[in-house]
Amino acid sequence: MALIVHKYGGTSMGSTERIRNVAKRVAKWARAGHQMVVVPSAMSGETNRLLGLAKELAPARHTDAVLRELDMLAATGEQASSALLAIALQAEGLSSVSYAGWQVPIRTNSAYTKARIESIDDGRVRTDLAEGKVVIVTGFQGVDEAGNITTLGRGGSDTSAVAVAAAMKADECLIFTDVDGVYTTDPRVVPEARRLHTVSFEEMLEMASMGSKVLQIRSVEFAGKYKVKLRVLSSFTPWDIDINEEAGSGTLITFEEDEQMEQAVVSGIAFNRDEAKVSILGVPDKPGIAYNILGAVADANIEVDVIIQNISKDGKTDFSFTVHRNDYARTIDLLKGTVLPTLGTDILEGDTKICKVSIVGIGMRSHVGIASRMFRALSEEGINIQMISTSEIKTSVVIDEKYMELAVRALHKAFDLDQPAG
Amino acid sequence: MALIVHKYGGTSMGSTERIRNVAKRVAKWARAGHQMVVVPSAMSGETNRLLGLAKELAPARHTDAVLRELDMLAATGEQASSALLAIALQAEGLSSVSYAGWQVPIRTNSAYTKARIESIDDGRVRTDLAEGKVVIVTGFQGVDEAGNITTLGRGGSDTSAVAVAAAMKADECLIFTDVDGVYTTDPRVVPEARRLHTVSFEEMLEMASMGSKVLQIRSVEFAGKYKVKLRVLSSFTPWDIDINEEAGSGTLITFEEDEQMEQAVVSGIAFNRDEAKVSILGVPDKPGIAYNILGAVADANIEVDVIIQNISKDGKTDFSFTVHRNDYARTIDLLKGTVLPTLGTDILEGDTKICKVSIVGIGMRSHVGIASRMFRALSEEGINIQMISTSEIKTSVVIDEKYMELAVRALHKAFDLDQPAG
Repeated sequence: MALIVHKYGGTSMGSTERIRNVAKRVAKWARAGHQMVVVPSAMSGETNRLLGLAKELAPARHTDAVLRELDMLAATGEQASSALLAIALQAEGLSSVSYAGWQVPIRTNSAYTKARIESIDDGRVRTDLAEGKVVIVTGFQGVDEAGNITTLGRGGSDTSAVAVAAAMKADECLIFTDVDGVYTTDPRVVPEARRLHTVSFEEMLEMASMGSKVLQIRSVEFAGKYKVKLRVLSSFTPWDIDINEEAGSGTLITFEEDEQMEQAVVSGIAFNRDEAKVSILGVPDKPGIAYNILGAVADANIEVDVIIQNISKDGKTDFSFTVHRNDYARTIDLLKGTVLPTLGTDILEGDTKICKVSIVGIGMRSHVGIASRMFRALSEEGINIQMISTSEIKTSVVIDEKYMELAVRALHKAFDLDQPAG
Repeated sequence: MALIVHKYGGTSMGSTERIRNVAKRVAKWARAGHQMVVVPSAMSGETNRLLGLAKELAPARHTDAVLRELDMLAATGEQASSALLAIALQAEGLSSVSYAGWQVPIRTNSAYTKARIESIDDGRVRTDLAEGKVVIVTGFQGVDEAGNITTLGRGGSDTSAVAVAAAMKADECLIFTDVDGVYTTDPRVVPEARRLHTVSFEEMLEMASMGSKVLQIRSVEFAGKYKVKLRVLSSFTPWDIDINEEAGSGTLITFEEDEQMEQAVVSGIAFNRDEAKVSILGVPDKPGIAYNILGAVADANIEVDVIIQNISKDGKTDFSFTVHRNDYARTIDLLKGTVLPTLGTDILEGDTKICKVSIVGIGMRSHVGIASRMFRALSEEGINIQMISTSEIKTSVVIDEKYMELAVRALHKAFDLDQPAG
């Protein structure tokens, strides 16, 4: 007997028919002798519907008082889906009870719409489990110290599930979603993409942050911090699939180095075209330049990703960085308005037609020559590299966005990702 | 400056446009210097939508565990509408905050789907009012001692509003609804029906229980118990109507005898055709007969309204009573199956084509001859009276349902209800 947490996304909870299937699947696990905690999202479309109503009514300025009410509003979506699932489980003949975040309680800070979990009291849930109940805990939400409802932000139900699993010291946390696992890259771009049986949590972090949106990145951080064994798997297999087969399906996100030893050097190819590039040319190369530029950008709450400063020539250097495309126009205005005049240059270049492609693999730590293999593969396809950025387990390049699919396919092949892992 | 509670029904909250109008109306009252507490219902249709989903999933037997989840589910409707109203008020430039029942808290017993309020903590609301906030409290719901969400049953938001007004010692509780007050009778039956400027709470109780469904009957009982000054008025007047005019509109439900002294003897005519009549003829007249019959009916959870036992003749008597039409078939089966065999008679008569018409008036306490004036008016129209039942402030007759409108019109005229009150 194990203590298992299941998490079901909005699509899996999207209709009464689907909720009934979730109930049957959970019942199968409970009848196999497991203690079950289930964390559902709101029915798909519900959160958008509620926030759409709010948008029609809200003042232009979203003060903390407005954000508080948005959380109060949005939290109803998960409360309703949780109650419906509890009812469906009872119809399956199981004893079951649902709790809103405040009833557990799941304590968070007071950062409305993007709150962070601070603690979870497992007493009430543990008592119910001991009595043989399936316990349903609303995803996405908690309660602050003053008793206000908070939400964790979009995708927060993943984080709720992992946090509950951590607090309960669950044996495993199964994230049921509309894909059947984590792939070497997006199968829509590379049809030969393979599902990974296991992926390390560091790799998963890089993949999630690079646009492979299988899991919310904070849930992966949380899982890493508390060593929660996490599995991503499909909720669209028939509910009565053999439980042992199901328990081994999907992708397991692991934390033990050992399990990774025999893995491929590169686990996957991540990519996105959400970024834009900004370059300031002919900047006098003296101390404080990077701060002068990026300090102003950070003050405007603009997030910077890749940063490159070239070697200086004749006492001048070129400085480039990428920002989210949505922030591009604002960044250019900011630089022209207040930054360039202090730098002694006015040569500003920008490009929104770029993309970032990354190879991710925990094996890169112990292998040399991986980056050059990447650059060769791109060069063989005639793709010019504009920027390079590296980390311990990732190498990213910024290239012209028109080459994105070509680059991803070339790298997928160059690192033998279409072959079963050794 | 006064402390005022506003309650808005589901129709008044039925769209973002209507919620905006509610916000403007509340803002008008707040700007006039009043401390405002607002109790909204769920947006119209929402509770039915949620319970409809539950119905598709629920087991046949509604155990306490199922009822608990139905409350968890239904309570989201008011939480959402309350948050939306708080947001709309903020857009009007007012400081405002919404609380779910458990946040106030509004303590109830644990009778899921029909819980009763036990206490309301006014501390949190009072602090907010002192800070100049408009406080929104979800209608319809509370929390039991163990921290489970409960609901008060259909129409429970009226009761919530009155209970909050009682706990806060509010100066007045205004129930905004889709009618503009309490009428002498249903204007669809008698076009000359007049709106009552005031009605006593006892009269209101009788009217509410007799099918004049302006207010939930429990809210009126609550108002009577705690002497809450209650006003029923329309939410469909323009929101910017003069506040003094609005404050005097609708119908005031009063508790002071004095205010009633100059009132008409009869305040209104209530009626319904929800009942059916059952008669057992030739019952041996001996002690315990009424209990033999009605005990069995009560044990089957069938509610009995009018009860008549005629004077006995030759040691035999006739025994008649009315039940809700939905319970009629079940009542007949029950009597035939287990009751009649013990009575020594098998003469059972029933009639579903009846209606009950009542005159209601607190003045009946101190005036004689009111009932005979009623009977004369009916007799002049050739209407045969089948059953009569009286209370201190009400006289009811059961007649053939085809005469219902005729009887109501005749009585409305006989008691001069189409004339302005003296």
